[in-house]
Amino acid sequence: MAVDPSIAAQAEAAARRSEEAAEAFFRAAPPLRDRDSVAASLADFVARHSAGNGGAGGPAGVICITSGGTTVPLEQRCVRYIDNFASGQRGAAATEYFLKAGYAVIFIHRRGSKQPYCRFLPEESFLDLFELGEDSEIKVPQSHSTVVKTAISNYRKAIDGGLLLKLPFTTIFEYLQLLQMVATSMNCLGHRGMFLLAAAVSDFYVPWESMAKHKIQSAVGPLNMQLNQVPKMLFILRKNWAPSAFCVSFKLETDPNILLQKAEMALKKYGMNVVVANELANYKDVVVMVTSSGRTTVSRSSKEEDIEKQLTELLVKMHSEHITQANSEDHQTHELS
Amino acid sequence: MAVDPSIAAQAEAAARRSEEAAEAFFRAAPPLRDRDSVAASLADFVARHSAGNGGAGGPAGVICITSGGTTVPLEQRCVRYIDNFASGQRGAAATEYFLKAGYAVIFIHRRGSKQPYCRFLPEESFLDLFELGEDSEIKVPQSHSTVVKTAISNYRKAIDGGLLLKLPFTTIFEYLQLLQMVATSMNCLGHRGMFLLAAAVSDFYVPWESMAKHKIQSAVGPLNMQLNQVPKMLFILRKNWAPSAFCVSFKLETDPNILLQKAEMALKKYGMNVVVANELANYKDVVVMVTSSGRTTVSRSSKEEDIEKQLTELLVKMHSEHITQANSEDHQTHELS
Repeated sequence: MAVDPSIAAQAEAAARRSEEAAEAFFRAAPPLRDRDSVAASLADFVARHSAGNGGAGGPAGVICITSGGTTVPLEQRCVRYIDNFASGQRGAAATEYFLKAGYAVIFIHRRGSKQPYCRFLPEESFLDLFELGEDSEIKVPQSHSTVVKTAISNYRKAIDGGLLLKLPFTTIFEYLQLLQMVATSMNCLGHRGMFLLAAAVSDFYVPWESMAKHKIQSAVGPLNMQLNQVPKMLFILRKNWAPSAFCVSFKLETDPNILLQKAEMALKKYGMNVVVANELANYKDVVVMVTSSGRTTVSRSSKEEDIEKQLTELLVKMHSEHITQANSEDHQTHELS
Repeated sequence: MAVDPSIAAQAEAAARRSEEAAEAFFRAAPPLRDRDSVAASLADFVARHSAGNGGAGGPAGVICITSGGTTVPLEQRCVRYIDNFASGQRGAAATEYFLKAGYAVIFIHRRGSKQPYCRFLPEESFLDLFELGEDSEIKVPQSHSTVVKTAISNYRKAIDGGLLLKLPFTTIFEYLQLLQMVATSMNCLGHRGMFLLAAAVSDFYVPWESMAKHKIQSAVGPLNMQLNQVPKMLFILRKNWAPSAFCVSFKLETDPNILLQKAEMALKKYGMNVVVANELANYKDVVVMVTSSGRTTVSRSSKEEDIEKQLTELLVKMHSEHITQANSEDHQTHELS
């Protein structure tokens, strides 16, 4: 079917605007402090896992999981910032389940957010977990013993096995630069690459160059602020950074009346494979997976199991179909050529 | 010296305005969720430590230390909020030193901020600290052994000795309600009570009733916000909640040119005993203690020692003079009556 040339031209113009906005954002962003060391560990991680499990026992795939909220500084010497609520629970849980499913995981997370294998430990002072014995050896009270030992054992397995790379961020500037670096280095993985974009990313920001240099003074009365929109990077990720990867994004709303419609819009607009729609009031109990072939409601099966377990199982299955389909398309192309 | 009656009337009117603003703030704030249990543990803690060290070996005093930044929700079902940068390092360190000096400490802290005795442990996943031995016993690598064991031992001593009460907050609404509860229950301690107000408190907020109910939508373009000033509660604390306590507040600025002048202003305006002035660029290395009798610069003496140690020593001395002076004034009043 022929596409109306004026619609195609409009879409192209919109794409160009998005790309220009993204370029402007990166140009103006304060550069990532440890860019070189991040780039090196990233290149090493992707190279080690690029072979795949073509019989060699390598990982099922490589997934980039983003987690926690990004901050928007309001002052260059940052005292105040706007933050997005996100404990990081979902991303930390998904990291555990994807590791269990045989994936290598790049975990881009907000500093201080929930970490894999730490979810069931007390949130505040971890010192509450420990006691000193008579010979000042470290003891864990019986009540916590299993959970602490399982956590240490699983965590060590992931780290020592080189299957988990953790990259922390705080600001929206750091987050988007990290995402760009990870996505472009994962591009070589083709369809075996996957993105689970669970971070709560700011929609608005103050461009670095127009930001107050010093702390905003309170004496002058009410504060008026104008914030710009953050460019929609999902679109750029899909179009330029990692076009063959399997992309899952999340849509969180507090108003259930607009949720699914906004998820459908994101699916089409950014070319996601799946958009997981969740409502703030019950996001731990039920989510809706929106794809181009329909909607699937996923409900938590019991109090003891978290919803991320089921979600991961479904996503692993869909990703594996995505790989198979791509391989067979490759195969057909080869046969035709 | 007689005070000009018009100036006295102006001051009284300003005080009334402050009190009205504070009342309006508390009336509109969403009520603290666990208010009753906090009130109970607070009453118990203060009662246990109200006897003082009149030879009975009780604590030198009771100090309320506030720590970490407060958030300002931008939506009632909170997804976005404005936050103040503060790791909580200073409050956590001061808590350790005041406990060591024999004080009982009420630690009002931002959830997830630095905790006493945890400052020297790795910030991210605490699982990095541990290994499992052959019989799956928990081991700490030699390199961290001393620091972890000291932390556990000091922490248990404070908690088991009933000398440390930890009260967490997230929003400005929670913080100010907690501060009011703590200050009014500490009022019975008279001059033995002390406040070290190290929390980074928001200057601006969105009143609860004028807040967006649902998540603010990004599709409509740039975001314009108007924020109101938070009432100056230091003034109310000094005037109404705990008038005899020894009060120390902090002033943080990024611009050194206005720092000391703003600290002097806070000292007079809010009736503080000490204002500790610090600059964001070097607050770990040097601070200036501003009092009515002058300024004292405190510099970190070595890389190995933190500045909070010296600061605590000076403040303990000043608080003890404050108590002695009050006792001798009491004594004189008794003799005169």
